[in-house]
Amino acid sequence: MSCRSKKTKTDPKNRKYDPPDSLSSVGLTTPRRLRIADASHPFLLESGARLEEVEVEYETYGELSEAKDNAILICHALSGDAHVAGWDATAAGHPERKWRLTHPGWWDAVIGPGKPIDTDRFFVVCANVLGSCYGTTGPSSLNPATGKPYGLTFPMVTVGDWVVMEKTLLEKLGIDHLYAIIGGSLGGQQTLEWALRYPRMMGKCIIMASGPRLSAQGLGFNAVARNAIMRDVHFAGGDYFGKRQGPSNGLAVARMLAHITYLSGKGMDFKFGRRRLDAGDPQKGFEAEFSVESYLNHQSKSFVERFDADSYLYITRAMDYYDAAGAWGDGDLRKACQRLHAELMVVSFSSDWLYPPAEAREFVNAILAENKPVTYVEIKTESGHDAFLVDTIPVGRLLRAYLLAPGINRRSGAIQ
Amino acid sequence: MSCRSKKTKTDPKNRKYDPPDSLSSVGLTTPRRLRIADASHPFLLESGARLEEVEVEYETYGELSEAKDNAILICHALSGDAHVAGWDATAAGHPERKWRLTHPGWWDAVIGPGKPIDTDRFFVVCANVLGSCYGTTGPSSLNPATGKPYGLTFPMVTVGDWVVMEKTLLEKLGIDHLYAIIGGSLGGQQTLEWALRYPRMMGKCIIMASGPRLSAQGLGFNAVARNAIMRDVHFAGGDYFGKRQGPSNGLAVARMLAHITYLSGKGMDFKFGRRRLDAGDPQKGFEAEFSVESYLNHQSKSFVERFDADSYLYITRAMDYYDAAGAWGDGDLRKACQRLHAELMVVSFSSDWLYPPAEAREFVNAILAENKPVTYVEIKTESGHDAFLVDTIPVGRLLRAYLLAPGINRRSGAIQ
Repeated sequence: MSCRSKKTKTDPKNRKYDPPDSLSSVGLTTPRRLRIADASHPFLLESGARLEEVEVEYETYGELSEAKDNAILICHALSGDAHVAGWDATAAGHPERKWRLTHPGWWDAVIGPGKPIDTDRFFVVCANVLGSCYGTTGPSSLNPATGKPYGLTFPMVTVGDWVVMEKTLLEKLGIDHLYAIIGGSLGGQQTLEWALRYPRMMGKCIIMASGPRLSAQGLGFNAVARNAIMRDVHFAGGDYFGKRQGPSNGLAVARMLAHITYLSGKGMDFKFGRRRLDAGDPQKGFEAEFSVESYLNHQSKSFVERFDADSYLYITRAMDYYDAAGAWGDGDLRKACQRLHAELMVVSFSSDWLYPPAEAREFVNAILAENKPVTYVEIKTESGHDAFLVDTIPVGRLLRAYLLAPGINRRSGAIQ
Repeated sequence: MSCRSKKTKTDPKNRKYDPPDSLSSVGLTTPRRLRIADASHPFLLESGARLEEVEVEYETYGELSEAKDNAILICHALSGDAHVAGWDATAAGHPERKWRLTHPGWWDAVIGPGKPIDTDRFFVVCANVLGSCYGTTGPSSLNPATGKPYGLTFPMVTVGDWVVMEKTLLEKLGIDHLYAIIGGSLGGQQTLEWALRYPRMMGKCIIMASGPRLSAQGLGFNAVARNAIMRDVHFAGGDYFGKRQGPSNGLAVARMLAHITYLSGKGMDFKFGRRRLDAGDPQKGFEAEFSVESYLNHQSKSFVERFDADSYLYITRAMDYYDAAGAWGDGDLRKACQRLHAELMVVSFSSDWLYPPAEAREFVNAILAENKPVTYVEIKTESGHDAFLVDTIPVGRLLRAYLLAPGINRRSGAIQ
């Protein structure tokens, strides 16, 4: 318990992760890849474009039961990947994944043996999304038609495309029904899209720090981020691969900005306030002088080493475009909710201003108005949008309780 | 009246300004310049640096009374200038001020004959701050020692420096006491600094959408903005003057970001929502497609034509550094407030998240705790931080009422 309580402190700087040999870790993991499309079976995108080669990188933890009724799909957020838990055994061989040598998967605190998403009970799957840069085909992949990276010739991808991709992967793994799907932020939009697109394919859906569409403010922040990248002189129309320099400055600015939107104002005051790096030498100019500046610099530096700028464009655009009401209800969210069949839990965080509780409540009211089963939880926290990642004590408790509660749908009840 | 009510609509796009010959406009104005420092009387900055040439650009409206007791100082915000009201008669001759041909001063709605800050009663002064790019000496000015623009060799400036500069200007205009000082945002910090530095030099201070210091979140946003500018390959260490291209892309990104922070989330949903520019052709890629993207692009485009990137660095840094408690109370805001003598009105706007009402209330409580005269008003609005500029009906009513109310300090009562 002492180990777990250490792990779940809300300040990321203080978080202590399980060492690889910890009893509650899934231990060493190996990312896998599966080709889900080829020239004879191309992947058809919502835009109408086709991809003749699609490889998906994914990880799994735990064992699929004989009845194949214990699979949980985790959907990752904007900058996430398939490496959700444990320690990547292959990280040393990939310079762009070197951060994994010192960090476990991004939701390691809640996934593992005996943890809230208990890998002794569940078979957990997570796939990297199409358009990303962590193993699944994306703009930095080689275009088989040219032998060069796609860059901006990569077709636009959507949250719907990701769900279709995940379904294709799951079918290849022999899974035709999911015990649950869980996702936060953009992963929450994916979770919702699953519930709307394939309503009878899962028992429970847990949507955290997310909603049926992004606000105008969110659209604006994404636009600023993309502008920072595309206005970088080294962006080169997205074709910067193999060049001496890519749009790392633009990507750094995009990431700094994004980080502010992931935290709450009060949370930032608490964490950084107006503290200076060097109390004895104030007002030295334009270099980082306040702690918060140093934090943002540091975050952006590690990000540009691990993320691809083109992928950032594609994934933020998919986030912009996602509109559950538009896609499934002719613009009417209630009408879209008529499609729902799974039990839903919607979790919002009081200080999340990217997907604010008020918008989550509107969404829940639309679900309730259609008499669909939904649980709504608002967690009080100053951790902002990031709470689903960092407030792992309350999040873990909720996940554990909701996953094990008796289900109302056939094939989705608690494991006996 | 119909003319005035048109002018005060909250949507800037719908605002109709007075034509130059309108009865309630101050009419054509001429920016003036005054040298307030030279080699024998250098301007000493808080940093310890000296400027041997300081010119201040300022405007005045109305007439100074014989008793010199009707002067009101307006303090402008980050991207503001001395041109607060009326129509700049000299704009046609200055390409970088061409926007003034189609726009009156930035607070024209509240300043003029019969308007809330009534130029039939008051003598209104506004000076462009040191470090800016609208006529007052700044990084784009020629350094007399080199004959070239200062760039980043310009010394750091502070809100305190601006106040000293304004005091020097006022003395040269023969004014040793102000009826009132009024400012919003960074101009509100200037107003507060006036009240703390020269407590007996004014009757009333009106501080809007501002506070005694910037939050960690605000520091973060300014850091992102400066990073966007300084990471632009054309920034050239701040010495881009006379070159084919300056850091206009970085400055554009900075401005787009700033604009989001000036609006409220709800206000953006109301104004833009998820509307698209072209409903028939969605998902076309990474160019502006949503209305909000187009708005931000447009705002940034006009800004880079009129503002200097180095000035943006200096002024945001002054905003970062400002800390009334640190400067006047050894870190204790109550102690700083002991210095106050003027009557204060603090005005916050319910949806302003850059200087939130909660922080304004803390400030007001510190003033009250020291038994200093203060009026606090929170205006309910969805206009966000920009409300002090765009919600001119309630703001104008407040200004009119507060300025004309009997004053408690000698020399500062209502004009008989």
